[in-house]
Amino acid sequence: MSPMRNFNEDNITQAVLDRMIACTDPRTRKISEALVRHLHAFVKEIEPTEAEWSRAIAFLTDTGQMCSDTRQEFILLSDTLGVSMLVDAINHRFNGDATQTTVLGPFYVEEAADLQSGANISREPGGMPLIVEGTVEDAHGNGIANAMIETWHADGSGMYDVQRATGKSALDMRARFRTDANGRFWYRSVVPAAYPIPDDGPVGKMLDAQGRHPFRPAHVHFKLSAPGYETIVTHVFIDDDPYLDSDVVFGVKDALITKLLKIDGHVSPGGHEVAPNTMLLTYRFVLPSQS
Amino acid sequence: MSPMRNFNEDNITQAVLDRMIACTDPRTRKISEALVRHLHAFVKEIEPTEAEWSRAIAFLTDTGQMCSDTRQEFILLSDTLGVSMLVDAINHRFNGDATQTTVLGPFYVEEAADLQSGANISREPGGMPLIVEGTVEDAHGNGIANAMIETWHADGSGMYDVQRATGKSALDMRARFRTDANGRFWYRSVVPAAYPIPDDGPVGKMLDAQGRHPFRPAHVHFKLSAPGYETIVTHVFIDDDPYLDSDVVFGVKDALITKLLKIDGHVSPGGHEVAPNTMLLTYRFVLPSQS
Repeated sequence: MSPMRNFNEDNITQAVLDRMIACTDPRTRKISEALVRHLHAFVKEIEPTEAEWSRAIAFLTDTGQMCSDTRQEFILLSDTLGVSMLVDAINHRFNGDATQTTVLGPFYVEEAADLQSGANISREPGGMPLIVEGTVEDAHGNGIANAMIETWHADGSGMYDVQRATGKSALDMRARFRTDANGRFWYRSVVPAAYPIPDDGPVGKMLDAQGRHPFRPAHVHFKLSAPGYETIVTHVFIDDDPYLDSDVVFGVKDALITKLLKIDGHVSPGGHEVAPNTMLLTYRFVLPSQS
Repeated sequence: MSPMRNFNEDNITQAVLDRMIACTDPRTRKISEALVRHLHAFVKEIEPTEAEWSRAIAFLTDTGQMCSDTRQEFILLSDTLGVSMLVDAINHRFNGDATQTTVLGPFYVEEAADLQSGANISREPGGMPLIVEGTVEDAHGNGIANAMIETWHADGSGMYDVQRATGKSALDMRARFRTDANGRFWYRSVVPAAYPIPDDGPVGKMLDAQGRHPFRPAHVHFKLSAPGYETIVTHVFIDDDPYLDSDVVFGVKDALITKLLKIDGHVSPGGHEVAPNTMLLTYRFVLPSQS
């Protein structure tokens, strides 16, 4: 047992660990102890001045106060420090031929509308027309019927619906679909643009101080789920984007990049009538069986 | 250079570090790199589930949102994890015979009133009467004239002024004094009680989950400054308090504990008239010369 008073650099870490002695939940204790050890090691390495530590407190406070029901600044912080992708990698180690995963990001909204395949999920005019034709399959290439697809993306100028003045009151470019008997789904929208993550808050200031740009390459988000299968959270990225090799949240994987095809004529490869100059995004999602 | 896509547990930490290449401020870069390394090491050790990581994000968000102009939950978090005392120890290594330092705590208010020695700083009736008689000296035992003493403490039920419904609009039990030509100052107040740190927020929930009580032993805060001397932030603790060996913020040092004396009669040792049953707190503060 370490002393219970007179703490200094040499004995305080053990003293804090000793205080966890009455913690009854083993997982809480393990996490608390690891947090104390790593946090103290960080502080001992950088030896912050008191002014620097005050600025760290102010940074964390500002980050929390920036959060609202349409802005999650701590997720942005986790994303931009590579922690979200690390957590994703730890939780999706052995997915075999399954679709690769990537970060959820801060713009997911649970209460998107349930729509029928074929719907146009972009109400605002403008932006290049897009048709998304996808399948959700098992590891053997069989379509999964009635799988749920949650999809959301930015508009042609790189803004998500919740970033508009209307916030959550006017959801746009997001919806939930179900696959048909053959595992197919399709919808209409607009081609999303690359965009900076919201950078008018503490995380934007941090990126600026670190000499980093705030951009993500253009992508469409998908969350895919079906009974008996693992849920997959991922994006499909659009090829040739200039930010594919410097995504500010470290989310890009080669297997998730697809080339948009300009549809020649007025019928898509899936047999759906389209306007002139519509772009096609197609992807074959594979869900791993639940273990 | 690590790859710029396809990040996994093995390559993401280096990838995030590589992004700091354009950071022009060496101190920002050093802190950012250390943060990434220690944060990733913590995540790799505990291997959080996605649900656990979401709870961590929610905990940090709630901690930020709990902050107001009279509540600093992130300082409470830093204090209860022993980080504030560690930062204090790092910044006050070689203070020789000088008064030992301890945490500032979350209840410091810059705009306290300037009062004359002898003032009663406790406006609310109730609580055992206290007289504080102190000196501020240099390392050779010479009184420092015109030194500033900022002092603040809890009331007889363990509450600070800013925790009352009146918040900062009715400051109490805090003031600023100046020493006289001989380095002396004195004031009247009430004897502070031990108290739980504010535990109705995220930090209180954390302490509860860790099996820890939220109490601090009774103490009076002092911040002492004078031109040519290092500023000292400290407490004087009251002897015999049951929480001296389990202070929730790890702030107790033997050299900062003093015994309250009950004054026999109606004149204090410093020669000031006092009410019956007044308790005396006396302390000799020593400021180190500025290096």
